[in-house]
Amino acid sequence: MNVPDTIPVNALPKGFRYASAACGLRRKNRLDLGLILMDEPAAAAGIFTQNLAKASPVVLCEKHLKAAANRIRAVVVNSGNANCANGPSGMRASVATAQATAKAIHCKREQILVCSTGVIGIPLPVEKILSALPELTKSAVALPVNYDGLTQAILTTDTRPKWAAAQCRIGGKQVRLLGCAKGAGMIHPNMATMLAYVVTDAAAAPEVLHSALADVASRTFNSITVDGDTSTNDTALVIASGASGASALSASGPGYKAFLKALEKVCHSLALAIVSDGEGASHVVEIEIRGAPDQAGAEQVARTIATSPLVKTALAGGDPNWGRILAAAGRAGVPFRPERAAIRMAGIHVFERGRALPFDEGVAHEKLLEPNISIAMHLRAGKGRARVWTCDFTAEYVHINASYRT
Amino acid sequence: MNVPDTIPVNALPKGFRYASAACGLRRKNRLDLGLILMDEPAAAAGIFTQNLAKASPVVLCEKHLKAAANRIRAVVVNSGNANCANGPSGMRASVATAQATAKAIHCKREQILVCSTGVIGIPLPVEKILSALPELTKSAVALPVNYDGLTQAILTTDTRPKWAAAQCRIGGKQVRLLGCAKGAGMIHPNMATMLAYVVTDAAAAPEVLHSALADVASRTFNSITVDGDTSTNDTALVIASGASGASALSASGPGYKAFLKALEKVCHSLALAIVSDGEGASHVVEIEIRGAPDQAGAEQVARTIATSPLVKTALAGGDPNWGRILAAAGRAGVPFRPERAAIRMAGIHVFERGRALPFDEGVAHEKLLEPNISIAMHLRAGKGRARVWTCDFTAEYVHINASYRT
Repeated sequence: MNVPDTIPVNALPKGFRYASAACGLRRKNRLDLGLILMDEPAAAAGIFTQNLAKASPVVLCEKHLKAAANRIRAVVVNSGNANCANGPSGMRASVATAQATAKAIHCKREQILVCSTGVIGIPLPVEKILSALPELTKSAVALPVNYDGLTQAILTTDTRPKWAAAQCRIGGKQVRLLGCAKGAGMIHPNMATMLAYVVTDAAAAPEVLHSALADVASRTFNSITVDGDTSTNDTALVIASGASGASALSASGPGYKAFLKALEKVCHSLALAIVSDGEGASHVVEIEIRGAPDQAGAEQVARTIATSPLVKTALAGGDPNWGRILAAAGRAGVPFRPERAAIRMAGIHVFERGRALPFDEGVAHEKLLEPNISIAMHLRAGKGRARVWTCDFTAEYVHINASYRT
Repeated sequence: MNVPDTIPVNALPKGFRYASAACGLRRKNRLDLGLILMDEPAAAAGIFTQNLAKASPVVLCEKHLKAAANRIRAVVVNSGNANCANGPSGMRASVATAQATAKAIHCKREQILVCSTGVIGIPLPVEKILSALPELTKSAVALPVNYDGLTQAILTTDTRPKWAAAQCRIGGKQVRLLGCAKGAGMIHPNMATMLAYVVTDAAAAPEVLHSALADVASRTFNSITVDGDTSTNDTALVIASGASGASALSASGPGYKAFLKALEKVCHSLALAIVSDGEGASHVVEIEIRGAPDQAGAEQVARTIATSPLVKTALAGGDPNWGRILAAAGRAGVPFRPERAAIRMAGIHVFERGRALPFDEGVAHEKLLEPNISIAMHLRAGKGRARVWTCDFTAEYVHINASYRT
């Protein structure tokens, strides 16, 4: 994903400070608590998991955004524990976290957003977070090294931090966007075990931010899948400080398209970084469907291929096994005629109108061992198009997930 | 699955002969061609893959059953090649197989059913089958050892043959049922890469057989899943010779319930043998959902859990990770309230009304390492119930499927 090691100072949007700490939720000295602090009340918008089993912090985030979306002061994130399915004590822990943060920075509880990620169903030892909060809030500064700490504190089984930056001009003013994310397992469309935070010094009302985020997420965060599972804690937030001095964005006003483009650049980069760091993944795979009866059908076929264990294990072995792609498409519930369809793998035309095309298996195998692979299928049944990104399915994925808790 | 090594002579239904051969489709001396021969024209019924990409032999089977379901004379099965996605030459190969078999046993082409299983998209070297057919048809006899050969000839990545027998009485006459199957990968509801053949000396019209098979399959073959993929070649056939001398079955007549029960016994045993032999599987897992809004909802939740890679990898590690079960149920698209639900794993009550119950992780881990595991979830949202069977997801599955072709 070509992420540079250090965030340049001038990539930091104005109006934000960052801090992180090792509060003891994970193994000793592992960063597990992160903070984004706004200098002034900021506008925020979020999209959240569609899972019925929503974690307490997600429920609280949604509530606080309803109450105070235009004057958010901080985001607190812990890793190591999802604080999900913990009964009423789970919500009490999230509320206590918001309360303690609000007290430390002198604002109202509703101005704090709380996120958690990690194992489900183990009571959150919230006292560890509460003990760390006073020092954490004091230590927040606007330095790249502090942002680095934040990007590390939110990780679970991720093997590396993920961040992306972009800039755009709004009415002559330079505006910065900076995002970080965690992912790894349970990544699937409609929000995955994914946390993503984009901060910007643009000025925008919460509703405008929400529209922009929802629009961009459909083509980025909601178009990736690692294992088809959907987490209980998914949260993507965008927070605008307005500190750039640019005039406020509106969907019909000047600069909105530039902002949307910059936001998509950040989210696309983060989404692909998540897939690339999928548990055990050795390849990032772009699946493009064309010629579906409609866009929903194209997405359905793309996602069925992207989550097929047989397709994903074949890709782990660099196997040009287009039969599994055809079989997955054929069971997606979308009408098309296999005898009219075409499939390309890694740019090689392997299937056309119901039959295999001759190709060099050795060359195809070599191409499929590259880190980035494309699969394209044309159904010739309409004009629907969709792209999703997935990763391959390796023995390492099983090793990671068969030993997560025990 | 407690399958005895040798089929008793008296388990063989009257009116059938069996043969097998190594015709060279698989590695040297590996049985890859099987034959079921009827002494007299017999009644037959089948259910087939719902995949849009149907293999040629499936299309031909459906056609021949429409033309001659009450006078079928033989079933020919090859392994090693699915004869799928081979364009017009694929259908020519299936037709040629039926034609040559018909010629050898002096009947019409429509009286022959042809099945194939194996790799997709590689032209079937049908001349190998055609060369073997004259000797194959001549060598068919009604002996257990010949049936053994048939059960072996249909296998692909299966590690062992699968067969099951049952008997019942119809109007004072003893009736026998004998079934064999192959499975291993791509096993999923709505017919999986699965071939299953049940022969019986009961007498029944094709329509009665079809009703019985469809009824039983919904609770057996269509309630199992190995990896969520659906094959292009799935075929389950039931063939009735009438040679027991029992009077013809009718859905409202005497003996139908006894026959249905015996058929379900055979199909249930075969279905569980398929799951148990799922690629890389180390556990068979029964997932029972109760209290769903309706039966379809119960099935949807059960299947979502049964295909969740995170649930299946946790089970490979004997991990009592009920959070993944809850998360899978929560994304199934079926309305229920997690704060009212309950989960049991291996009989241990682990989750109740929104929170974890205390349990001994060591004991739970031991119980989850047993070969047969149960997961039960009560949604408390209605009266819908469903049971499905799946297997765990191991690194061995990945190894098998990442190297299937290359």
